Amino acid sequence: MKPMTRIEHALAAAIATGEEPGCPPKLAGAIRHAVFPGGARIRPQLCLAVAQACGDDDPALSEAAASAIELLHCASLVHDDLPCFDDSPMRRGRASVHYAYGESLAVLAGDALIVLAFQTLAARAARSPMRLAPLMAIIASGVGMPAGIVAGQAWECEPRVSLTDYQRAKTGALFMAATMAGAVAAGAPGEPWRALGDCLGEAYQAADDIRDVAGDPRIMGKPVGRDAALLRPSAAIELGLEGAIAHFDRLVALAIEAVPECRGSEQLRGLVRQESERLVPKTISKDMARAVV
Amino acid sequence: MKPMTRIEHALAAAIATGEEPGCPPKLAGAIRHAVFPGGARIRPQLCLAVAQACGDDDPALSEAAASAIELLHCASLVHDDLPCFDDSPMRRGRASVHYAYGESLAVLAGDALIVLAFQTLAARAARSPMRLAPLMAIIASGVGMPAGIVAGQAWECEPRVSLTDYQRAKTGALFMAATMAGAVAAGAPGEPWRALGDCLGEAYQAADDIRDVAGDPRIMGKPVGRDAALLRPSAAIELGLEGAIAHFDRLVALAIEAVPECRGSEQLRGLVRQESERLVPKTISKDMARAVV
Repeated sequence: MKPMTRIEHALAAAIATGEEPGCPPKLAGAIRHAVFPGGARIRPQLCLAVAQACGDDDPALSEAAASAIELLHCASLVHDDLPCFDDSPMRRGRASVHYAYGESLAVLAGDALIVLAFQTLAARAARSPMRLAPLMAIIASGVGMPAGIVAGQAWECEPRVSLTDYQRAKTGALFMAATMAGAVAAGAPGEPWRALGDCLGEAYQAADDIRDVAGDPRIMGKPVGRDAALLRPSAAIELGLEGAIAHFDRLVALAIEAVPECRGSEQLRGLVRQESERLVPKTISKDMARAVV
Repeated sequence: MKPMTRIEHALAAAIATGEEPGCPPKLAGAIRHAVFPGGARIRPQLCLAVAQACGDDDPALSEAAASAIELLHCASLVHDDLPCFDDSPMRRGRASVHYAYGESLAVLAGDALIVLAFQTLAARAARSPMRLAPLMAIIASGVGMPAGIVAGQAWECEPRVSLTDYQRAKTGALFMAATMAGAVAAGAPGEPWRALGDCLGEAYQAADDIRDVAGDPRIMGKPVGRDAALLRPSAAIELGLEGAIAHFDRLVALAIEAVPECRGSEQLRGLVRQESERLVPKTISKDMARAVV
């Protein structure tokens, strides 16, 4: 089965456990809206790719880890879009959850998705129970305190913040969790996979900043120019568009170097190259050159 | 060590792990504000009391289970107080988290507390790793979909709701999780402890409804009369104050009957009696009688 198919099946199964009889129907709808149809599913794909590179000897657990990471990512998107943060009307090309279901259900859907992520992990750990605690620790540290995505979002409420700390927590932490969790789910040590997640997370955040400045809202599926409007720290604003693209290219090169040697390392490097082209298409560089001329 | 001391220590240790260097200070403050000083800590006390009745052979794990349940309860209070729900200015006798720290940090503090609950469990499961997955499943089902506290809160967004379904999810589910988790943390089966949690949860919700109608805001530490103002389902509104008090007394009697026979069962029954008097003091019945006269 293709990785994307495995991810969509695992997510559908996770969501279905929350939709049993007795569940409030609007909340079930809001959760489904938050998870399907998905975006590029880049974090769970990364998690599964690392699990495969490490042998993937417990596919149910690696799929659970990948799903947990995506559910937590979806939760963070739902809460980030709320009126008290970005007040974003669109996400993935359609109404954000609070636009479609109201603010109360958006808060609750995010909460339910966080719980569901851990529930999914616990439900699929039967074959390798000794891997559950380290997996949970890795995934929770990518989301919570002191330096996961929740902490990253909280830096927006502080008067002073370093761009690196902010972006590492807001984006990098879950990428690190994705690579390390993929390894641990397959019975390998997680630590050697931290650097890959770190570089990819930073590259992904740089790409997001670039696309927020240079992107087309129809392609992005969400409004552009929000970082400047919301006075958010941004590599593209701090370094300029050209500087930010050079920074992105450097990070991709570092990520490729950071892939540990293993059976699947060449395939993984190819995936990183392919993703980087998807994230910052050559057309952005061309458009930029044209604008400079 | 007294149960209350064990709980406060365990909660302090859990919070401290999120306050390591690199953590955004306002979020750390909001989380601390949400957890300390606490209320009666009734759920974690119940969890520890059941663990003790079952032998408490892994105190670190039973304390982690008790803390996880209290952290999840605190998270739900922070989110329930938000402007899109109750917009409550007070909680536990002082400013609610969003009044003290703003709405954004209140959303994030709730999220971080949910993550911290599971992180705490994973961090204390080293001695009994095989108990982690069932503990997580029990605790998550008390909070998430389809019938945990998040689902309970979501019933407030539905046009039709049964009082029993609503209250069982909003309050009963976490009480059931508390009793069952206490047993499982001590290596005993959880299922025989479900009925006790169910009865106590319903009794506690009935007490809350009674105090919302009859209580004094200085004693409650939060505004009273909110259920009627917010058109929320309430036993005291549905049955009248006298009917609600009779309902409460019946539930306490059922809870006492539901305590499974074990070494600590008599002590546990005493605790239930003591708690019931704290929840609905005889003075409320007297005040009511006077009002009727």
